[in-house]
Amino acid sequence: MTDIATRVYNHTWKIDPIVRSVLDTDFYKLLMAQMIYRRHRETRVTFGIINRTTTVPLADLIDEGALREQLDHIRSLSLSRGESTWLRGNMFYGKRQMFAPDFIEWLEDFRFPAYHLERRGNQYELIFEGPWIETTMWEIPALAVIMELHSRAVTKDLGKFELQVLYAQAMTRVWEHLQRLNGLPGLSIADFGTRRRHGFLWQDWCVQAMKEGLGDAFLGTSNCLIAMRREVEAIGTNAHELPMVYAALADDDRALAEAPYAVLADWQDAYDGNLRVVLPDTYGTENFFQRAPEWVAQWTGVRVDSGDPIAGGEMAIAWWRKNGQDPKKKLAIFSDGLDVDLIHEIQAHFQGRIRIGYGWGTLLTNDFRGLGPGGGLDPFSIVCKVISANGRPAVKLSDNPTKAVGPANEIERYRRVFRVGKQVAMPVVV
Amino acid sequence: MTDIATRVYNHTWKIDPIVRSVLDTDFYKLLMAQMIYRRHRETRVTFGIINRTTTVPLADLIDEGALREQLDHIRSLSLSRGESTWLRGNMFYGKRQMFAPDFIEWLEDFRFPAYHLERRGNQYELIFEGPWIETTMWEIPALAVIMELHSRAVTKDLGKFELQVLYAQAMTRVWEHLQRLNGLPGLSIADFGTRRRHGFLWQDWCVQAMKEGLGDAFLGTSNCLIAMRREVEAIGTNAHELPMVYAALADDDRALAEAPYAVLADWQDAYDGNLRVVLPDTYGTENFFQRAPEWVAQWTGVRVDSGDPIAGGEMAIAWWRKNGQDPKKKLAIFSDGLDVDLIHEIQAHFQGRIRIGYGWGTLLTNDFRGLGPGGGLDPFSIVCKVISANGRPAVKLSDNPTKAVGPANEIERYRRVFRVGKQVAMPVVV
Repeated sequence: MTDIATRVYNHTWKIDPIVRSVLDTDFYKLLMAQMIYRRHRETRVTFGIINRTTTVPLADLIDEGALREQLDHIRSLSLSRGESTWLRGNMFYGKRQMFAPDFIEWLEDFRFPAYHLERRGNQYELIFEGPWIETTMWEIPALAVIMELHSRAVTKDLGKFELQVLYAQAMTRVWEHLQRLNGLPGLSIADFGTRRRHGFLWQDWCVQAMKEGLGDAFLGTSNCLIAMRREVEAIGTNAHELPMVYAALADDDRALAEAPYAVLADWQDAYDGNLRVVLPDTYGTENFFQRAPEWVAQWTGVRVDSGDPIAGGEMAIAWWRKNGQDPKKKLAIFSDGLDVDLIHEIQAHFQGRIRIGYGWGTLLTNDFRGLGPGGGLDPFSIVCKVISANGRPAVKLSDNPTKAVGPANEIERYRRVFRVGKQVAMPVVV
Repeated sequence: MTDIATRVYNHTWKIDPIVRSVLDTDFYKLLMAQMIYRRHRETRVTFGIINRTTTVPLADLIDEGALREQLDHIRSLSLSRGESTWLRGNMFYGKRQMFAPDFIEWLEDFRFPAYHLERRGNQYELIFEGPWIETTMWEIPALAVIMELHSRAVTKDLGKFELQVLYAQAMTRVWEHLQRLNGLPGLSIADFGTRRRHGFLWQDWCVQAMKEGLGDAFLGTSNCLIAMRREVEAIGTNAHELPMVYAALADDDRALAEAPYAVLADWQDAYDGNLRVVLPDTYGTENFFQRAPEWVAQWTGVRVDSGDPIAGGEMAIAWWRKNGQDPKKKLAIFSDGLDVDLIHEIQAHFQGRIRIGYGWGTLLTNDFRGLGPGGGLDPFSIVCKVISANGRPAVKLSDNPTKAVGPANEIERYRRVFRVGKQVAMPVVV
């Protein structure tokens, strides 16, 4: 029997909303937001969407009206009572009351600020201007909306049956990935795929697949809403936006050079244990380690998020040793462009030498390579980055020059200040 | 919203019935039944289930009570009004009123007769005794029930999620099969998989997959219920039970030798066109062709259902030529143990020389090889065969001695009468 009431109710939806909760975002956003709330409430930061895969003409594929409807829907969201209860009562990284009551009260009152959307050629310019604590919240939902509208556009002409086969193929692929990972000694892996996911329901499915298929090797998900609903760990620490904003606000080159460490000093004031994971690559990993104060080496671990992951891990090990730390007690989290082969390679290389974790992103929650019509679901690389802070331009160098962002003259200045030498350009697939 | 009424209604089912319609059977059963109804209403025939894969302990896997419940449920079925209307009004093989009104009236009143079920070691003895016109109707539903109870038994400990992945993998496999078949020049293929299907819903899905994935290369399905519901052609002609019963009833060796041709004489009195397809292998194809009257070569085609399909097709071509027939106008239907590789091989060998059709059975509707827990869903070979007619033992030789059935002394007699020489034993997978 068809449930007529449900059927009729569904007709009344104006749109099928992609992001339906303030918590449909990555956990690190909340950790960073609490620090921003505590220390930088007056700072204004502009974020912007950048599609690094310019061959994907987003503005031709995605209707501007549909995009506005989705973004407007996000602006109508507020934290629900149950969500607030979860943030207040749940244990995160082994700790209760990770979020202070005043920050949660702020989050309860939070509404997404205005956005600026404009078509530029066959791409969109999507900009978020305002207080950092508000604009930072747009990063993940904005990316998720664009990703899912793109998936919908590419699949819109498929029949019901073709769609069923498409998802059967994708499910089979994820399951085969998990089977190849299953039993890998010492594996510890989390879903980091919110921002580039094929769609919300698909990410939710992937998390359940990992939970069922990987057992104890599955750490959790970066997605707060899915972590809450599926009762798994919420995972994540911090991102490039912190050093990028601190760097942009630096008054001179000397302050600029210290900015990445100033971030860490503030962070360790707020968080401890496994949340003390250094993200060293914003302005070049090598220089970061060379100039890092000794107390940074006491942190729990390092996140390797660009460049060759084997080289990045080796740099961290050398740095720990130089600072009298035992690498076996240290954690390296690999989170850049992971696929099953690469995870096997990294695991084989570092197993037994350090503690290893993986943040698996796009090629977990969006591995539709070769499955969509005309390759239209193949991954593409879109990010939401800090453009400026208090009117000053922001810069990221990364360990891969292909990932650098910022005005050319500022990039040059940063390269000089951070003594970034020759970098190996690597293709950015995802 | 959950439809509470549906949920509560589902609770009231005592069992989940596997066969829910008199039409959930193969089309050839109805064609044969009409001939039996017209000519052999007094003949009594005993059918019995034979599990040729004795390593699969059906009686250990399937609960006897559950099997009885399913068989009893089938005995409660009768032709519905809409089903009767479809049989009366639908066009089969390009012809209206394929079934005479008196036969349909008989079918409307038909109820499945009693069965005899007994556990023998780790297998079941399942026997149907009574008028041929009634017992013949048990073949397909009895097999389908055992197959699906077996599938349910093997998968009963899988979680909801493991089941989803299992079917996603199986769907992906079927779709990949279809993609490998798609575009094969001149392909013409039907689903013949009712009897060994994984389950009813799975067969229904496979038919939809073929319809969507193969376009005009998809001929239809042998399953009447699915043909009706999915509005595709019902496909099938006749089976070994006809010559087996005619042969068992033969009074002497001379009549025995003529029995296979007596079947054909009766058949062509009832059906014409593409329904005139000879099944030559019951007592050896080679001898059948050698001794066939010239009018048999005028029939539309031949079904190659055992032995090496290339050799079988070549024998048919040689026979047609010998009888002055143009093989290019003739049809060969291959229906034994087909998989995609074999279809490619047969197509490459015969394309352009004859008209070719495929009846794809077990490895379409039950290709779960390697997917179930512990290989438990790998195919096994179960048949429902004529044991005796009017008390006389029935025999089948086939072109593969592994498939022979009947008492040993009768098999010897038949081999002598039909001058069956050395046969190549081939493994029977499905």
